[in-house]
Amino acid sequence: MSEQLVSARITPTQHLNILSQLEVSRLLDASNTGIYRLFRQCALAVLTHGNYTDDAKELLERHKAFEIRIIQQDRGIKLEVKGAPAEAFVDGRMIQGINEHLFAVMRDILYTHDEILDNPKFDLEDSDGITNAVFHIMRNSGNLRPRSRPQLVVCWGGHSISRMEYDYTKEIGYQLGLRGMDICTGCGPGAMKGPMKGAAYGHAKQRIKDGQYLGITEPGIIAAESPNPIVNDLVILPDIEKRLEAFVRTGHAIVVFPGGAGTTEEILYILGILLHPDNETMPFPLIFSAPEGSRDYFQKIDDFIGATLGKKAQEQYEIIIDNPEKVAKKIKKGTKRVRDFRRQHSDAYYYNWRLKIDTEFQQTFIPTHENMANLELSKDLETHVLAANLRRAFSGIVAGNVKDEGIRAIEKHGLFQLSGDPEIMQKMDDLLKSFIKNDRMKLPSDVAYTPCYQIVK
Amino acid sequence: MSEQLVSARITPTQHLNILSQLEVSRLLDASNTGIYRLFRQCALAVLTHGNYTDDAKELLERHKAFEIRIIQQDRGIKLEVKGAPAEAFVDGRMIQGINEHLFAVMRDILYTHDEILDNPKFDLEDSDGITNAVFHIMRNSGNLRPRSRPQLVVCWGGHSISRMEYDYTKEIGYQLGLRGMDICTGCGPGAMKGPMKGAAYGHAKQRIKDGQYLGITEPGIIAAESPNPIVNDLVILPDIEKRLEAFVRTGHAIVVFPGGAGTTEEILYILGILLHPDNETMPFPLIFSAPEGSRDYFQKIDDFIGATLGKKAQEQYEIIIDNPEKVAKKIKKGTKRVRDFRRQHSDAYYYNWRLKIDTEFQQTFIPTHENMANLELSKDLETHVLAANLRRAFSGIVAGNVKDEGIRAIEKHGLFQLSGDPEIMQKMDDLLKSFIKNDRMKLPSDVAYTPCYQIVK
Amino acid sequence: MSEQLVSARITPTQHLNILSQLEVSRLLDASNTGIYRLFRQCALAVLTHGNYTDDAKELLERHKAFEIRIIQQDRGIKLEVKGAPAEAFVDGRMIQGINEHLFAVMRDILYTHDEILDNPKFDLEDSDGITNAVFHIMRNSGNLRPRSRPQLVVCWGGHSISRMEYDYTKEIGYQLGLRGMDICTGCGPGAMKGPMKGAAYGHAKQRIKDGQYLGITEPGIIAAESPNPIVNDLVILPDIEKRLEAFVRTGHAIVVFPGGAGTTEEILYILGILLHPDNETMPFPLIFSAPEGSRDYFQKIDDFIGATLGKKAQEQYEIIIDNPEKVAKKIKKGTKRVRDFRRQHSDAYYYNWRLKIDTEFQQTFIPTHENMANLELSKDLETHVLAANLRRAFSGIVAGNVKDEGIRAIEKHGLFQLSGDPEIMQKMDDLLKSFIKNDRMKLPSDVAYTPCYQIVK
Amino acid sequence: MSEQLVSARITPTQHLNILSQLEVSRLLDASNTGIYRLFRQCALAVLTHGNYTDDAKELLERHKAFEIRIIQQDRGIKLEVKGAPAEAFVDGRMIQGINEHLFAVMRDILYTHDEILDNPKFDLEDSDGITNAVFHIMRNSGNLRPRSRPQLVVCWGGHSISRMEYDYTKEIGYQLGLRGMDICTGCGPGAMKGPMKGAAYGHAKQRIKDGQYLGITEPGIIAAESPNPIVNDLVILPDIEKRLEAFVRTGHAIVVFPGGAGTTEEILYILGILLHPDNETMPFPLIFSAPEGSRDYFQKIDDFIGATLGKKAQEQYEIIIDNPEKVAKKIKKGTKRVRDFRRQHSDAYYYNWRLKIDTEFQQTFIPTHENMANLELSKDLETHVLAANLRRAFSGIVAGNVKDEGIRAIEKHGLFQLSGDPEIMQKMDDLLKSFIKNDRMKLPSDVAYTPCYQIVK
Repeated sequence: MSEQLVSARITPTQHLNILSQLEVSRLLDASNTGIYRLFRQCALAVLTHGNYTDDAKELLERHKAFEIRIIQQDRGIKLEVKGAPAEAFVDGRMIQGINEHLFAVMRDILYTHDEILDNPKFDLEDSDGITNAVFHIMRNSGNLRPRSRPQLVVCWGGHSISRMEYDYTKEIGYQLGLRGMDICTGCGPGAMKGPMKGAAYGHAKQRIKDGQYLGITEPGIIAAESPNPIVNDLVILPDIEKRLEAFVRTGHAIVVFPGGAGTTEEILYILGILLHPDNETMPFPLIFSAPEGSRDYFQKIDDFIGATLGKKAQEQYEIIIDNPEKVAKKIKKGTKRVRDFRRQHSDAYYYNWRLKIDTEFQQTFIPTHENMANLELSKDLETHVLAANLRRAFSGIVAGNVKDEGIRAIEKHGLFQLSGDPEIMQKMDDLLKSFIKNDRMKLPSDVAYTPCYQIVK
Repeated sequence: MSEQLVSARITPTQHLNILSQLEVSRLLDASNTGIYRLFRQCALAVLTHGNYTDDAKELLERHKAFEIRIIQQDRGIKLEVKGAPAEAFVDGRMIQGINEHLFAVMRDILYTHDEILDNPKFDLEDSDGITNAVFHIMRNSGNLRPRSRPQLVVCWGGHSISRMEYDYTKEIGYQLGLRGMDICTGCGPGAMKGPMKGAAYGHAKQRIKDGQYLGITEPGIIAAESPNPIVNDLVILPDIEKRLEAFVRTGHAIVVFPGGAGTTEEILYILGILLHPDNETMPFPLIFSAPEGSRDYFQKIDDFIGATLGKKAQEQYEIIIDNPEKVAKKIKKGTKRVRDFRRQHSDAYYYNWRLKIDTEFQQTFIPTHENMANLELSKDLETHVLAANLRRAFSGIVAGNVKDEGIRAIEKHGLFQLSGDPEIMQKMDDLLKSFIKNDRMKLPSDVAYTPCYQIVK
Repeated sequence: MSEQLVSARITPTQHLNILSQLEVSRLLDASNTGIYRLFRQCALAVLTHGNYTDDAKELLERHKAFEIRIIQQDRGIKLEVKGAPAEAFVDGRMIQGINEHLFAVMRDILYTHDEILDNPKFDLEDSDGITNAVFHIMRNSGNLRPRSRPQLVVCWGGHSISRMEYDYTKEIGYQLGLRGMDICTGCGPGAMKGPMKGAAYGHAKQRIKDGQYLGITEPGIIAAESPNPIVNDLVILPDIEKRLEAFVRTGHAIVVFPGGAGTTEEILYILGILLHPDNETMPFPLIFSAPEGSRDYFQKIDDFIGATLGKKAQEQYEIIIDNPEKVAKKIKKGTKRVRDFRRQHSDAYYYNWRLKIDTEFQQTFIPTHENMANLELSKDLETHVLAANLRRAFSGIVAGNVKDEGIRAIEKHGLFQLSGDPEIMQKMDDLLKSFIKNDRMKLPSDVAYTPCYQIVK
Repeated sequence: MSEQLVSARITPTQHLNILSQLEVSRLLDASNTGIYRLFRQCALAVLTHGNYTDDAKELLERHKAFEIRIIQQDRGIKLEVKGAPAEAFVDGRMIQGINEHLFAVMRDILYTHDEILDNPKFDLEDSDGITNAVFHIMRNSGNLRPRSRPQLVVCWGGHSISRMEYDYTKEIGYQLGLRGMDICTGCGPGAMKGPMKGAAYGHAKQRIKDGQYLGITEPGIIAAESPNPIVNDLVILPDIEKRLEAFVRTGHAIVVFPGGAGTTEEILYILGILLHPDNETMPFPLIFSAPEGSRDYFQKIDDFIGATLGKKAQEQYEIIIDNPEKVAKKIKKGTKRVRDFRRQHSDAYYYNWRLKIDTEFQQTFIPTHENMANLELSKDLETHVLAANLRRAFSGIVAGNVKDEGIRAIEKHGLFQLSGDPEIMQKMDDLLKSFIKNDRMKLPSDVAYTPCYQIVK
């Protein structure tokens, strides 16, 4: 495949207009530091929008010649790209939405490294410190909307879903959009694009011009799930755990669609949090929904949760099959409860400070072979700790499937080994096998999916 | 089929806020006059948006119970609807876009009747008088954008087209939208919806928030081609001829997609005008485009034009097959020529006063059986007169196919009889037969299409 | 005095952008019709803003060389001025506010002549017809604000007032502005400028950016009271009576400051209306206010009203001396009552349709010597008819003082003769003499004021 | 004098909406730290706007009961004030402009202390570090306007000037406003208020709605020069030197009016900078202007500069007497040169990074008796060092006149002793005596001005 490549100088349209000389010099330096690699990788992902792949490694290898440089010019900074994918340009000019994504990437990576990770004010070992850090990154991105009512619906689900499922996510987005709801997803294709596209259509019908389509991502996943162009607010958190925290603190309700390991990770994450006693009285609308043809999917998920986390976990969500209008109405009603609750407690609408997230769910989990093998997956654990460990196991599988580092680690060290209570392991094996059978692990390609893990029963 | 019906009071969101008591009383009177029937019919069409049918008669009969009344209340007027189709509402509230369409209908019908048709200032027998009337209706609708560059692309084509053709129109709309072009169509489904939907997506990517999706329609056709919800500017001209004039004076370029009799009418109309000597030096980008699978369609149209109007007519347009990007680039370049020309002549961008439209193309043609039978279709006529008559013939066929009055006339008096030069009639017969064969005459339904005309060879 | 003169071409910044060819040709014709004289005269008044004179005749004679022409150019129309006063320009460019005033003049004169005076739809002999005409002129000017609460305070008072009185009107405007009130006056200097200037300062402190400073004038008076530059909404009604009706139907409260014959005319006008039985229950805040040093002025007015119209008339207003804050608070409270009343009756905020104005107060009074001499000023008349006749008498005196035609009539035919009940005539004589004594009849100049009337006792 | 006092809770209207819990807790802590005193003092100054005094000590003592507390409430923070001056409120609500000033004070004090003074990233011993700090404070205030052309005119001059001089500053502001220029002053009355008031009037005439009236102040002076209410952008720099740097790096031209010691300090500051060889080719319009009646003032200043800094210093400015229009035209032309220069060098419009300011002019000078006595004022020094030392001498006199700490120091230790070259000291003595004679040292009051210094000749 011969691809067209473009070289160009890009002017930021929104951000970074007024930089101090101190900051500009730090940016210029950045070209030569460790974070340059990170920036280049995320920038490339943004530029290949729409050309979805879930092999981050492959993407990077395909675009070896790609270069991006910060240059100082004319009262500000510009970006110079070489060997950039042509799909980001129209008649030689970068598409405006891509331009915004590109500078959003730059903004977040620099801010996170300069102001958060290296800043003694933020104690990233501490639960409150992490929560504050997530808030500061979100606020710096300009994506919190202080004047807005609670209307941001997080949609989770697979990037690799069937056409029927995709159309279903669009229809739910449409029904939400008709009711003035905004959408937040993890960027990327499938269940992350459908609800936004549907909502955009609903918003257009209702003449809502400032609908929010918020994409929350992180450097490890952005290559596999590059922001779809409808995303009009983009933010890059530094790791999975902070990304997940950003979802649950900024969103006002969650709809989960069918998906694979990543979706299961997200389900385990939110259940683990909602099961915390401190969150008992807090309203948090959570709906699992699928079209009739995928009814089976949530049956399996429900079984798995029942068998591992128990009945109380099952009470946290409602499963609605094949009824977009019902989902939208329930979510709308739910966000009203959220609003009442926040108002009653004088809580902010734009960030759920009150939600208790245990440190277990905040600490970064690095899926090395050792860490994966050491995960304790036992019924003896407290429910929320088990939920946390199961979350980590699925998180590791996602890494092995689609992330650059994960893929390279599997190539080098072989499959992840997962072990634990036989019953849990059996349920987990069943679930993962059904994912594989239904092509939910990766985007369909010529090559059959090869698992990156082994269940040690 | 049991349909949900809704009764509600509707407040205008944009128009008609500040009415004088004189005007309100005229509106209230309107409920009891002849124009009430017209208003009710158009309102119904707007409310059934998306539920496309092309049998206006059937639509009216299905909604016999539908009522709409103007009432005076609370510092202004409201509309009270009874038995309205539920699809226009979300949770009991009328969709904002439909609300705007509804009051646009009211605005245009009342303005046209009050200020244009009954006003001695407008001599509607006179070419300039008609042109002024069209302008006043357009301006009163608020849809002329004086600050905008020439970027409004009229898209013509069938409402009954294949999925493949529909997707192609969307792709062209997308490529135009990426380049900042706006779209104007005749409302309705098919080639009238696709380009708008595509452009909306392109505009979203380019963060263009004020893209124009202008629908120009007329009371006879609105039932069959109810405004799709993307239309954000809607105007109802009083008849086909003024609608066509509105297209060519406000649009800056035209793309024609495959279609049926209506599309052929439009092609003959614009060719007849461009062939007028006064328009010789005026740039007017005109492109016919279809996907590869429909290449044959424009081959037939091209042949028909060559055989009837000759080579000079063929020079007015370019046929581009299966290349949306090329179409978009050519149109963009073409609108730049339009801009240069207008600037050079100090002409307005928002209305092409200079375009010469012969009275033949402006006078209302009422397709009675007598008028249809009397049409002279002869090679002895001057080319532009022949084009005008051919236009009328196809216009009559459209009426017989989808308009309430036309359908009833055919039911009463039998088929339209068309006669003329054998060669012309033969070509016409071929063309119409190919339309029938390809389902281009009406939306596909259980019942096969029955022609409303007979070619007397 | 040698004055600088400027010639320039002026582009409208707001109005008249989209004209039809019909309208442009009518405009071009206008240059040669009777209304040209009217337009030229008003335009000249606008251009000499700030250079106040109250001798319209003198102004016209001083600027004999002034010419203004409508020309068609570049996608629209322009105005070409020759021999225009230099004070309307800064470094060769017309001041933006003056530009707006100039085109407002053009807009209103043309609209009034084209759409109102020559339009059979408006029966200008009929009370409702006149009210509708006033509304249409106001609406066409774009100066009705449908979304605004009742907050428009009409300020009446003399153009020729002392510095102390001027500062007092400024202070009241300031206190009103601090409370979010908007101001409407008759344009011109003195009590018509002070409240606006004060309100602008109050608005600035409260960061109100869209404060309205509405000037309502008429061709006969505009030369003597050219719009002060703070006026950001200007409208020209065709005669005094329609101007007065515009004041009382668009304003939500009235403050009257000391003034001369014109102010007395206005007081008699509003009292005559409020005394009408139909208006009995309608709230209409009306306050007379002056600084301590001018306490005497309203004492005299109050006496005059008591002696002629009686106690009930005196109950319509409140006199507040030397307390701007109290005035502002009372007015604010009063506009809340107005708001409650309108809401209760589903009346519009932007136009008081419900206010009953007797035809006596609507019909144009032309102050010929004959009409003035024939005025019946007798206690035998019904109160509101006496109020109407007294209003006419003072109106005639204003014309004789400052209007071009009035001054010429006095020069030709001698003084107006006014006669009636001895008691009334005595009170009138006293009042007018006190005006003369206090320099309230005209702007101070070298020449002493010569009365234009004679009281025949 | 009995004064009305108000207690109220104040909600911020612009700033500080989205705070993290970390920040809120820091704010709450602030109530108990050293910066509370600073904040309370500045807040009080803002609330007494218009009630000008130039005795900061007296102001504080008069309002001993004044309290201001940050409280957390309802999704954000509020300010609770007790014993606040009533003039900041209208009918119990704080005036919007004062509200903005109050939170601007809070914003700048907290930001400066949290992010600048305690932040190792800013080396405040270093020239570049100081320049960066000033920039960050300005940017954080939101008062840099990156899209604006160079049009910000700094106006310097006395707070205690005659009515005639005040009217002259207004007239110059008016002429600048008519030409689209914005105004920046040091807040306060006199020459700091007049130009803004005039410009606001000019802007209103030109329908400029976003005119900038930027006030730059510092905690030591704000009590004596509380922001006049026209100031719509306010920023508090931490000390005099940074305030002066903010003036010259954000302004595009400077007009100096008559004033006293503070104005002389400013003149010496800008001359010292412009005399630096690195700034030789940089355009920097600098005009001294006064009405005819104050011609003498600039004659004396010019003499003093000639005698101390020499001819080259005199070439940096132009003196224009009694000609506002000429001043405005020259300034406008000058800002065009600034624009050309910046564009040519790819320099920002909103901050003059290129201007070389020697560390001598950046380092904080604390006018202790010792420091004042040790100032070297000798012709043997390099010109720019002499300018710097003279600047310090005048700065100390300002402190002794109007600043809280300065006044207390004089009360305790007696007069400042100033010594140096006899010729310089003689000239200085003459100049200061003329200031005293013309009431330029302090606002006129019952008590005659007592010098806070002694010239040791």
